[in-house]
Order: sequence, then structure tokens, then C-alpha cells
Amino acid sequence: MQQSSQPAALWIWYPGDFEIRLHEKIAVKRKSRGVMYPAFWRLDRHYSNVIFRYTYDLPQEERIKITSEGTFSLILDGKDNYRSKDSEFTLPAGKHQITVCVFSDVEAPALLIEGAHVRTGSDWEASSYQNDWLPAGCWTFDTPDHRPSRFRLAVTPQEPATVELRDGRPLLDFGRETFGYLRFHNLKGEGAVNVYYGESMAEVLSPEECYSLDRFDAAEAGAAAEDGTYTLDDAKAFRFVWIHADPGVSWDHASMLYEYVPLTYQGSFECSDPKLNQIYEMGLYTLHLNTREFFLDGIKRDFWVWSGDAYQSFLMNYYSFFDLDVTRRTLVALRGKDPLARHMNTILDYSQYWFISLYDYYLYTGDFAFIRQYYDRAVTLMDFCLQQRSGEGFLEGRPQDWVFVDWADFNNTGAVSTIQLLLARSLEAMSAFAGLQGDQTAADSYGELAEAIKAKTFERFWDEEKGGLLHHRVDGVTQPTMTKHASLFAMTFGYLTPEQRESVTQNVLLHPDVPQIRTPYMRFHEMAVLCEAGQHDRVRQEVLSYWGGMIELGATTFWEEYDPTLADDAHYGMYGVPFGKSLCHAWGAGPVYLFGKYFLGVTPSSPGYETYLVQPNLGGLERMKGTVPTGKGLVSVEADATSLRIHGTYGTGVLAFTSAEMPECQEGEVRPLGGNRYEIAIEAGRTYSVSYKAVI
Amino acid sequence: MQQSSQPAALWIWYPGDFEIRLHEKIAVKRKSRGVMYPAFWRLDRHYSNVIFRYTYDLPQEERIKITSEGTFSLILDGKDNYRSKDSEFTLPAGKHQITVCVFSDVEAPALLIEGAHVRTGSDWEASSYQNDWLPAGCWTFDTPDHRPSRFRLAVTPQEPATVELRDGRPLLDFGRETFGYLRFHNLKGEGAVNVYYGESMAEVLSPEECYSLDRFDAAEAGAAAEDGTYTLDDAKAFRFVWIHADPGVSWDHASMLYEYVPLTYQGSFECSDPKLNQIYEMGLYTLHLNTREFFLDGIKRDFWVWSGDAYQSFLMNYYSFFDLDVTRRTLVALRGKDPLARHMNTILDYSQYWFISLYDYYLYTGDFAFIRQYYDRAVTLMDFCLQQRSGEGFLEGRPQDWVFVDWADFNNTGAVSTIQLLLARSLEAMSAFAGLQGDQTAADSYGELAEAIKAKTFERFWDEEKGGLLHHRVDGVTQPTMTKHASLFAMTFGYLTPEQRESVTQNVLLHPDVPQIRTPYMRFHEMAVLCEAGQHDRVRQEVLSYWGGMIELGATTFWEEYDPTLADDAHYGMYGVPFGKSLCHAWGAGPVYLFGKYFLGVTPSSPGYETYLVQPNLGGLERMKGTVPTGKGLVSVEADATSLRIHGTYGTGVLAFTSAEMPECQEGEVRPLGGNRYEIAIEAGRTYSVSYKAVI
Repeated sequence: MQQSSQPAALWIWYPGDFEIRLHEKIAVKRKSRGVMYPAFWRLDRHYSNVIFRYTYDLPQEERIKITSEGTFSLILDGKDNYRSKDSEFTLPAGKHQITVCVFSDVEAPALLIEGAHVRTGSDWEASSYQNDWLPAGCWTFDTPDHRPSRFRLAVTPQEPATVELRDGRPLLDFGRETFGYLRFHNLKGEGAVNVYYGESMAEVLSPEECYSLDRFDAAEAGAAAEDGTYTLDDAKAFRFVWIHADPGVSWDHASMLYEYVPLTYQGSFECSDPKLNQIYEMGLYTLHLNTREFFLDGIKRDFWVWSGDAYQSFLMNYYSFFDLDVTRRTLVALRGKDPLARHMNTILDYSQYWFISLYDYYLYTGDFAFIRQYYDRAVTLMDFCLQQRSGEGFLEGRPQDWVFVDWADFNNTGAVSTIQLLLARSLEAMSAFAGLQGDQTAADSYGELAEAIKAKTFERFWDEEKGGLLHHRVDGVTQPTMTKHASLFAMTFGYLTPEQRESVTQNVLLHPDVPQIRTPYMRFHEMAVLCEAGQHDRVRQEVLSYWGGMIELGATTFWEEYDPTLADDAHYGMYGVPFGKSLCHAWGAGPVYLFGKYFLGVTPSSPGYETYLVQPNLGGLERMKGTVPTGKGLVSVEADATSLRIHGTYGTGVLAFTSAEMPECQEGEVRPLGGNRYEIAIEAGRTYSVSYKAVI
Repeated sequence: MQQSSQPAALWIWYPGDFEIRLHEKIAVKRKSRGVMYPAFWRLDRHYSNVIFRYTYDLPQEERIKITSEGTFSLILDGKDNYRSKDSEFTLPAGKHQITVCVFSDVEAPALLIEGAHVRTGSDWEASSYQNDWLPAGCWTFDTPDHRPSRFRLAVTPQEPATVELRDGRPLLDFGRETFGYLRFHNLKGEGAVNVYYGESMAEVLSPEECYSLDRFDAAEAGAAAEDGTYTLDDAKAFRFVWIHADPGVSWDHASMLYEYVPLTYQGSFECSDPKLNQIYEMGLYTLHLNTREFFLDGIKRDFWVWSGDAYQSFLMNYYSFFDLDVTRRTLVALRGKDPLARHMNTILDYSQYWFISLYDYYLYTGDFAFIRQYYDRAVTLMDFCLQQRSGEGFLEGRPQDWVFVDWADFNNTGAVSTIQLLLARSLEAMSAFAGLQGDQTAADSYGELAEAIKAKTFERFWDEEKGGLLHHRVDGVTQPTMTKHASLFAMTFGYLTPEQRESVTQNVLLHPDVPQIRTPYMRFHEMAVLCEAGQHDRVRQEVLSYWGGMIELGATTFWEEYDPTLADDAHYGMYGVPFGKSLCHAWGAGPVYLFGKYFLGVTPSSPGYETYLVQPNLGGLERMKGTVPTGKGLVSVEADATSLRIHGTYGTGVLAFTSAEMPECQEGEVRPLGGNRYEIAIEAGRTYSVSYKAVI
């Protein structure tokens, strides 16, 4: 192949189909005690019949090499009856159009063309024969062997931390929660091997009730071993493994192959409280384990891609790995294809989280090209949502919809106030996207709808006496139930007046009579909002007590749900199953987000962190330091009660802080904002050292 | 397994998915000179994630056997966390619900449960997790081995009629057009074998231009032989085969494996003109070859399922094989799934033919259960069509639509009158279906729309001076072009007044200045309408000249297009390719329909032939006899100038005929209708012999 300054050839496919096909595979991996437990929603599928096109202009003829996933035929200049299936082809000089049909009913049809100048990539177009020529999808697959269907996560061997015999059978402890494939080295003999897995010791010691298990025939397994090692087919989530083998079976030792996405830990946080540091690290690890082909809810169960769960993972990811590949894959897989008959994951709120997640993606990355590629799918999803508004204009669940909000004992019939706020926020996102697309009419229309829904929600749900938003409204009558949820979102979305904010903080968030939140899922929002209300110290204590409480119970990753009032093994049950609870659940990793966004205090002020804000808040800590990734750069923050050190590598920041005395900074101008507030402009590449006096 | 009076267990699947998956495979079988040439429209796909359910009530426990296509898990009484993947399972006594999840991303998920009483079948329900519980699809697959994905047509060996050497290479002639797999017996040696196929001698002798070819390595093929016979992978359409092998390759002889649907030839026609008998038989054979997994357009090319072509095959089939399996498979595959972005086969008219075909299915079979199963898909297709009406209310092609009407030199921009009549007819079909569904509001609404479009079409397109419907209307101005097409459909749909019928017959159909129709596709409609105008004698002569003309040119099956003015090999070209024309095209088989419907004269008067009409017309023949299948029975007709013999095995018929004298019949009462017309009621199981005097 000739040398060339062209970008490398990349495998291309119909946009979204790589992600949708991958999701189809992942969504059926869950097994409950060895039996498949597929996702209970429609799984969308890749188009099997796809066509690609590209127009080139070459001064001389060029030999190209063609590789495809599926069968292909190549057509020059639309001459449909004269096709080539050869793996090499000479393109004539001059300006010509190449069209390549690819069919595959197994994997998403994909194409790799390698020439000195003509090479597949994002400048090719793809169509599913629906008048839908779009820029082709592509990623990092760039050789005939490194092809989309062979996408696999990384693996590395791990040894158990300890092995002991329990009831005469080996019990392996890997020291903390992990995920991967159990392996047997030098397996010999004949008989059955039963493997029981546990996220907790209680689970692994309950062969009749543990969630994950394997059973295999030792002779067959021995024969299937490679280099003396037999690796089980299905990866599992576990810390403990208990191996029950028939007497005739032996092996040297067992280990595992850890499967993971190689992520860069770009975010960091370290403070004067070792317990908080431990919580932060455990949060990162919990998030990492759930950051896979997609952002999953939990690695033991469900191993599914849930939009509301992913919404939080996206945010945590912006403050830790800043991995946009898994973010985009998740957004595309969640959206799937039309026609829409049910909501995302069957949940009304989860359709709304998708829009908000998409907006967050734009805010944190500034990558509008991705939004543009999926804008049409956002429009049809919003059309679908808007169709089911009630006579009053509220979004209500249909009989087939799941209105989730949270795992809690409340009634979600009728119009739920939280749902209306999520819809308003989604409409604001759509309005922004439409404006960026250049469709001002649509932008105005979405914007007006958002305003109308917001206004009507406050009109019908705000309770002046109770000082917050009531939960739901049935048959035109607002019910007296008060929950924290709608008020949380109203606050985080900036929908409250200063008076309402104060009222919500005192009368809802901190009021003991409003039902407590039990899931880390909503604790995530609750803690964030408390920070927004300046209650950092309170949040620090809650984190220590709630997340710290799990650690005290032996957690090595954070859980799906935690109720401090439960006793012993009762912690592990959920869904009516003794070990139904997921002990490594992405939404448990909230502190990763809280510390980065509200303690280090770094947030984008404009898309892609072109401008940003740093508002460090010690929240009762003696000192803290850490970094927040901003996509094109990093912001480092170090703070104690008398000094601040800020460094940003990209974009223009503003450091805003409170000081009891006039602060000093050699590197930048300190601008007093009135009261105790000050700010300093932060240029990229410079370190700002500030002496000040923290207001405790 | 216990004996039981239960119906046999049948494989079940999500309704339509067996057909849709099969169509996905068939639509990519076409090869142009050995290179894949897939259908150029979106190929719909089966749902990969499906769930089945059934509630039983058993006096005692029962052991069932479970087989699936894909992976399954069985759940009892909704206990989602306690699943079984075992191939046998004991159902507890009492009333319980079985749910079975099946996932398959290869073939359509399918399930077979065999128990003494609990057995899969049409009383099970299926869902794609879209709130869409529907009666499960099923057919004749009834054992673990006889499963949906293994559906294959029948095969039987055929020997060539002659083998000669041409340029030193074997040239096989199978005597007439056939379809299947070429085979080599006792293939030996090393080297390449090139096989060239021809529907005509001219084609097979053009290795550089013939449409179908094969190339294989003799040594590999020899190794792959079974019982000394090497069978090529891809079936082909051909009469002639020319084998070019390298010198080192030898074989005893070559033959083929004919692949076909075993059909019963229920319709028959035999008359005093041997040429017409030959045309009828050749029509049956042409139709049979194209009656396969689906009704195809042509077996050499395109090997695709086209709605407009299938519409005619359906009608021919009702007068010949009365095979409803292939009819239903074709209707389901054509409709595919939502969302609709383009028209059926990308053609605006082809969407309309689907509704009309569905109505014909109901009329000829009385099977409303099938219509009910696909009624929702009919509704969304009609919604899609109605959305693209112009300001005037006419259905116009969008830029991405193909407005076909016919292969002819005319302009289909703007509103084409033929399209409006097809839409009106489609709306009438929808009105009938809605009424039968019990939705009178929808029935009225469709009916009113049909009336309005009909009225406006006549208002804007009927030319009083020219005495017919003009072709199209652009930007609100009806263009002066006159074609036969709209007038044909107006007549066949009964949309004309008696005066208009007479005018159309004389001023359009028989008028030499209106452009002639060149395709058998529209000749089909033209001939039918001439019969409806009583021009049977004219039709007989046209059939002799047009279809007979192909036979004189050596046809053994009827062609895609026939222009008597062309010379020699020019007949074989089409689409700018020397042998592009299909010489075995379903729409060439029109005489099968014409003789049954208009000469023997048997038509249903009510759905499923509960009542029917027999109007024999000799059309200038001395005598004729034949049978027409009616689903539950047969009607036999024998006629000459002085006698008629009618026998029906099911339903109640009316024999209506013209006689110059008062007819006589021992078996039934002759009722004079005025003029020369008479009728006799026909009861099932009796033979009616009538003496009369034909009016020549």
C-alpha cells in the first residue's frame, strides 16, 4: 500500500447500528441462576440491508482493497447491472461515484476500503434504502481483523486474595467486587463442577439462593482448555466463589480473567478525611465496573442499560473518566429506532432523562456534531412523548407505562409533578438543539412548551403552606402527598425563586416529616441539591453516614439500595429474592460527582468548558485537592482554610469563593463581588495561588 | 408421550416474523453474473426478543418437552426470578400461567411445547414487549426437527432433454425453462469449471453477457460431493447450461435438482383450440415456477417480491392452485413492519395494490381471521398513504417515490389518475375491513374518503370529448395525455356509468390512437376489462396473437415484456442489458386468470364462494371445459354452442348465460331475465345439464 497523508481507513456502518447491535447482545447476557433473563423491552436491531456511497476524484487510477462484514457488491457510477464482488478493485481516474451494497443478517453490515487515497471514513455516506443518506458511522476499527463485530473489552488475569476450605470445598475471596471469567488451571478428572458466586459472603455460602452460578462437566472442560487453562464462557460479577466439584475432579488452582474498559482516571479527589477518600475511591471503582460496552445499572443484576441510571453515570463520568465513547454508545443504544410504542426501558421518566443526558453531553463536551447526527431521533421521541399529554397538558402514564420516579412507597397515578419538570427540562434541551440546528421556529415552539408546562406545574402543584411541590394530581385534583422528588428537580433545574429555594431547603429537603430517600439513585439528586443550597457540610456528614455506612457493612463497591435500619443479611435481599440486591450499582457512585462538582466546584459555563467556573467549598474539610477533566484539559484545585491553588490547562475560568478577609493573589486580579464573595479570572496554563480566610 | 385428542403441538412465533425473516433471506438471493444484487428497499427483520404466554388448567401435573429456536427461559405464574431452561418441565396441576422468553438474533424466535394437553399453537399469545399481545403465528411445523428456520421447498432430480457439444463444450438443454441446482455426477480432476446459464439459446451462448453464471474449483467440488454428486449452492433459472471446464476436469454427466412448491393444479381449462390450451398450460407452468417461498416477479431476475406483480399472481392463483399459504406469506412479507418511510417496493402504486390484494384474499377465501391479524398494519399503511395527499386531496409521488403505473413512455409527475383510483379502491377495502372489525366509525370515514377521491378524480380527469380519463395533472392543470390505464381500472372497479363504460371501450380500449400496452402486466388488466365489456372474442384473438407470439419465438414460459415489432435477440434485452429481460415472469401468466374468470366465468358473489356466479362465455370457441377451485370446493364448467354442464361441490351458485332460444334444464329451474338472458340456481353436489343456443 502506498504511503499517504490521508487519515487511516476506518470501518463504516449505518449510523447507530454498531451500538444498537452491541446493545442487542448485551441486553440478553443477564442470567438468573444460570437461566437467561433478557431485558423486558423491544430490542432494536441493525438494518441488514445497507448501502454506502462516496464520490472521489483521482488524477490516476487506484487499486483498493475491500473488506466487509456480510456480503457486498461494488458498483461504479450507478451501473447496477455491472457489479464486483472482488476483494480488490481498480478505480479509474477522474471523478466517479462508488456505491457498495452490504448485507448482513448477523452483525451490522460494515465496510472497510483501503486505498492510497480512497478510504472509508466519516466522509462516506450510508443509507438503509429509506431516502436517508447520512454520514456513515465509524469509530476506531481500522484493519480487516480489527472489525466492529469483534469488539471486546480488555481482560487481565487476577488471582484470589485468599483461598480457604469451607465444608471441604474451596472458597475463593478476590478481596473486593470484581467482574470476569473464572478460570481453572490444569483441570483434570471426571465429574460435575458447580460454581457458586457471591457479591457477599452470605450469598456465596447460599448455593440454593445465590444469584449467579455455573455448572460444567470437568472432562469436557478439560478438553476445551487452552494452554492448560479452562476459562468459563460467561463473565460474572462477584467477590467470592465457592467451588463444589465431584470427588474425581482436581485442578491446580483457580483464578479469574478480569474484564474491563481501560479508562484513564482523569478526575481525582483527596482530602483531610481518609474515610471520604475511601468513599471517593470506592465510588470510582463502582463506576468503573459498571462502565462497559455501555453504562450498566449493575454488573450482577440487571446488566442492562437503563436511561435513568445512565443519566447519573454520564454525570459521574464527566468528573472522573471523561470517557465519551461509552457515553455516546449508551445514548445511541438507549434511543434505538422508531417506531416508538413504549418509553425507554418502558419507563415514562426514562424517556425524559435521555433528552437531559443529551443536553449534558453537549454542555460538557461542546460536541454538537453528535447531537446533529441523532437530532431526528430526538424529535420523534419528543413527538411520541408530547402525544400522551392529558387534557390539562400534563404528561401522564398510560396503562402500559411504568412511572418510576424512585423505589419508594408512593403512588404515581395521574400527573406526577416530577415527570412534568423532567419534560420541561427535556423541552428546553430540544429548544437548544433546534436553535443550534438553525431551526428557530422549532426552538421557539419547544421553548414555549417548556415555559407553559413549567408554569402550569407550579400553578397546580406548588403548596404555599407546605412550602414545596406536591407529588401528584389525579382526575384534576392535586393530592396532598409531599415527596422530596419534584422539589429536588425544580431546584437543580433552576426553576425556583430565591424564596422558593429557601422554602424547599427548609420545608422539604431538611424537614423530618417528608419521607426520607432510601436509594442512592435519588440520594444523588438530594445531595446535589443540598450542595446547591450551600449545605456542603451537611452533605459531607450524610456521605460519611450513608456511603460510609455501606463500607462499615463490608461493602467494597456501592449498592443499589441501602437502608441503615435493616439487620444483617436482610441488606442483600430485593425484589423478593434473598440475594436480589445488586451490590455494585452505578448509581451508588454519586460521591464521585458530588466531590468534583460541588467540593472542588468545577462546572462548565459554556459548552465544552470553553469557559468554566470554579467554586471550591471545603464543606467542613480541613483541606482537599483534586482534578476535574474538561475534555480538552484539566482543572486542578487545592484548598484549605487559608489558601487556594487553581490551575487550568484549557479554556477560561472564573474562580469564585467566599473569604472573611480581602484575599490576595499574585497571578490574577481579585474582584470583590460584594458581601464576602470574590472572583479571579483563570487563564489556561497558569497556576493561581490565593491566600484568603475561609468562612466556616 | 400420552395419547390425546388435542391438536398436534405447533411451533409458534411472533405473528408475521416467520414470513418477514424468510423474506429477508429471499430478497438477497438475486445475483447478477455471480454478484449479489439485493432488493433496494429496507428489509424488515424479525423481533429478536419475544415472549409467549398461555394459561392452562390441568386436573393433574403434566410433563412437557420444550424446544426453541434461540435461547429460552420458562417462567411459571410470573415468578420472574425463578426460571427454567430445562428441555423438560413438570407443570403443576391447577390453573397456572406459563410465560416463555425466547431470544434469537439469527432466526425468528420460535417455541414448541409438547405435552399431553399443554401444547403450543394458535391459542398461545406472543408479544415483542410492546404491549402487543397477539395470537401467536404458527403453520405446519410440528416436531423439534421440522422447525420454521429449516423451511425448504421440495426438490426432485431432472435430467437434461439433450446434451450436445458446442465449441467442444457440453451444452445442456432441459427442454423448457426450469429452476434449481445444477449437479455434477462423479466429478474428477483439477481445474476451474465455469457454468453459463441461459433462459434462451442466445443467452447461454453469450458467456460474457448471460445473466447467471457459476464458477468453482473442481477439486474442492469433488471433495464436497455427496454420494458422488456435487450440487451447486445457488439455485438458478434456466433452460440451457453451457459448461466450460479446464482440460483436467471430467464428470460422468450433469443434471439438476428442480426446486419447487408441491402445488395441486386445481384449476383446469381445455378447449377446442389447441393453441389456447398450450397457452393456458404454459401460463400455469410460468405461474408455478414463480410460486415459491413467495410470489416472485421472475425467477431469473429480480427474484424479488413486488406488490403489483403479486397482486396479479394472487388472482391467477385463485383460478389455478388456490394455494393460500404462499398468498398469506407474500401479503405478510410485503407489508413488513413500521415505521413506514417509503412505499412498498418504493412504489406508490404498490402500496395501494396491497390493500386491494388483501380485499381479494377476503373475497376469494372468506378468511377474515387473517385480515384481523394484520388489520393494524393495514391501518398504519393507510395512514402513511393519506398523509401525502396534495392540497387538492390527490395522492402524489414525493421526490423519493417511484410512481410506476407501467413500463411505458409516459410522465407520472403530479397527480396520476390511475393512482387515485387505486387509492379509492384501497379505501373501499379498508372500509369493508373496518366494518367487519366492528368499527363503523372508521368504516364510514374510509368509505367517505373513497367516495370523495373517486368523485374528484372524475371531476378533474374525465375528458368528455375524448371519452375517457386523462393521465395526470400537474400544478392543478390536467394534462391532455390519454393513456388506457386509468380507464382500465375505473372499469374493473365498477366506477363507470353504462355510458362511460361504452365510451371507454370504444374511445380508449379499442381506439388505435391511444398508445398500445406492451407489458403482459397491463395486458392482464386490459384483457380482463375487454372481457368485462363482453369482448371475449377479441380477447381470444389477442391472447392467441400476443401470448401465442411468444410461443412462436420459442418461449416455454411467458415473458416480462413482449414487443412483437422487435427482431431476433433484441427480444431478450431490457434495462440496457442484452439478456436483462426475464423470460419467466409471473405477470406473463395472465391467461390462467382470464380463462377461469371470464371464459369459464366463475366468480365469488360473496366472501369464500358461499355464493357464486357462473357466466360461461365461449368467446368464439367451439367448446371448452374446465374447473375453478373455490377453496372449499370446485366448480366444473363444460360448454359448447348448444349445451352447458355445471357442477359445484360447495356453496350456492347462479348460472347466468345468454341463449337465442328458451333453454332447457332437467335439474333446475330456468329463470328468464329478459332479453336473451337466463339464469339457473346451482346447488352443491348436483350436475346441471342445459341445452341452449349460443348467441355468436
